[in-house]
Amino acid sequence: MNDMSKPAATRITDPALIAAVERLQTDYVNAIDEERYRDLPDFFIEAGRYRIVSRDNHRRGRLFGLVFCDSRAMLRDRIVSMFKANIFEPHTYRHVTGRSTLSRAADGTLEARTSYMVARIMHDGTQDLYSTGVYLDRIVEENGTLLFSEKIVVTDSSRVDALLVIPL
Amino acid sequence: MNDMSKPAATRITDPALIAAVERLQTDYVNAIDEERYRDLPDFFIEAGRYRIVSRDNHRRGRLFGLVFCDSRAMLRDRIVSMFKANIFEPHTYRHVTGRSTLSRAADGTLEARTSYMVARIMHDGTQDLYSTGVYLDRIVEENGTLLFSEKIVVTDSSRVDALLVIPL
Amino acid sequence: MNDMSKPAATRITDPALIAAVERLQTDYVNAIDEERYRDLPDFFIEAGRYRIVSRDNHRRGRLFGLVFCDSRAMLRDRIVSMFKANIFEPHTYRHVTGRSTLSRAADGTLEARTSYMVARIMHDGTQDLYSTGVYLDRIVEENGTLLFSEKIVVTDSSRVDALLVIPL
Repeated sequence: MNDMSKPAATRITDPALIAAVERLQTDYVNAIDEERYRDLPDFFIEAGRYRIVSRDNHRRGRLFGLVFCDSRAMLRDRIVSMFKANIFEPHTYRHVTGRSTLSRAADGTLEARTSYMVARIMHDGTQDLYSTGVYLDRIVEENGTLLFSEKIVVTDSSRVDALLVIPL
Repeated sequence: MNDMSKPAATRITDPALIAAVERLQTDYVNAIDEERYRDLPDFFIEAGRYRIVSRDNHRRGRLFGLVFCDSRAMLRDRIVSMFKANIFEPHTYRHVTGRSTLSRAADGTLEARTSYMVARIMHDGTQDLYSTGVYLDRIVEENGTLLFSEKIVVTDSSRVDALLVIPL
Repeated sequence: MNDMSKPAATRITDPALIAAVERLQTDYVNAIDEERYRDLPDFFIEAGRYRIVSRDNHRRGRLFGLVFCDSRAMLRDRIVSMFKANIFEPHTYRHVTGRSTLSRAADGTLEARTSYMVARIMHDGTQDLYSTGVYLDRIVEENGTLLFSEKIVVTDSSRVDALLVIPL
């Protein structure tokens, strides 16, 4: 599991691999910002895990958090139900991410950490800084494409929960 | 023209070209943030177009928006008049941008999309998140230098308009 | 000394060097965001200078500003006393930075400028855009590692001062 406090097992500085990971990350946040939510599961392997947890809970090892999808199918269901429910006030996100730092875990897994800021833009034009935090990702290659085998969104604030509808 | 919803025609992953585009983008936003507004036209070709439109208007194909400069000369005029008018409360911007995704359109045009966040800092020290959105750029090479042939600033919020003085 | 208004002496576009500088920058901000404050002096050479000044003061050549550490030892002392004082309401930061632009000064020094935004997250979950500005860095290599010989944090707003506890 990713750990916020320990230094990376083996730092990766291969420019081609970093570029590929940052492309994956950028494509992922662009899909959200362009409201192509149904594309999100395609960034994960079939057994891919997607979680949103607060920094406090992550630190304490409580990883269940607010959103917990244990497979691509679960994530797909969640996104479909998000549209069905349709009870939320329409809004969009805008992500800006920092540069990814990559490391290779002892078991060979490729891990990436990437800071993010997300602004939320309501339909009436109101905008605010909605969430900040870090993506702790595990990434694998399938058929020549990088995919998330795990994406843990660690939010700096614990307050984000009640409002959360769209994946971060 | 750039389209927010369609996938890119041909994705470009050439690291040297991406680096050059991101340098152009970074130089452009740094010029704004350092108040070197008069340098901005130099980032465009002579027939370069610069537009600011809201996401809603862009989606509906209404591209006239709030700022519409159809040439480098028009942009130069607009910036000069901005100083002449001088009726606005002094403020500066700070941009942070995400990584650019590049593609080659069917007609060979180099297109880039880059998310941005802009903070506005008033003279009294007040700061707020002023605008978020995406740069949809068309880029050409002239005498070995990359320049914008078109820059469409698509703002996520529709509210930004009334306050807008400095280019985004 | 770094200068905000003049164009860089000699622009550097070497991708490996830019990547190394951006890794240094990212590691630095990650150390802050992950509350590993005691690691910060290790990003500096022994005689390294760390300053936080407002944009206004920087423009006027007043570089003493609010935080002024003239060596790694001073920075270390400042961080230790920050924990001893312990009078501040607990909070964390989240940085997002833009791409670094690099240049080589006339005397051979490697200089980098990097825009930043910092969100502040209070213990009760409140978050706001706390500071924006630019890092003006001088960077040297020691034993194969890039380190800051000078880091001037130029904050866009002058208001940040009174609240500042954690390094930016």
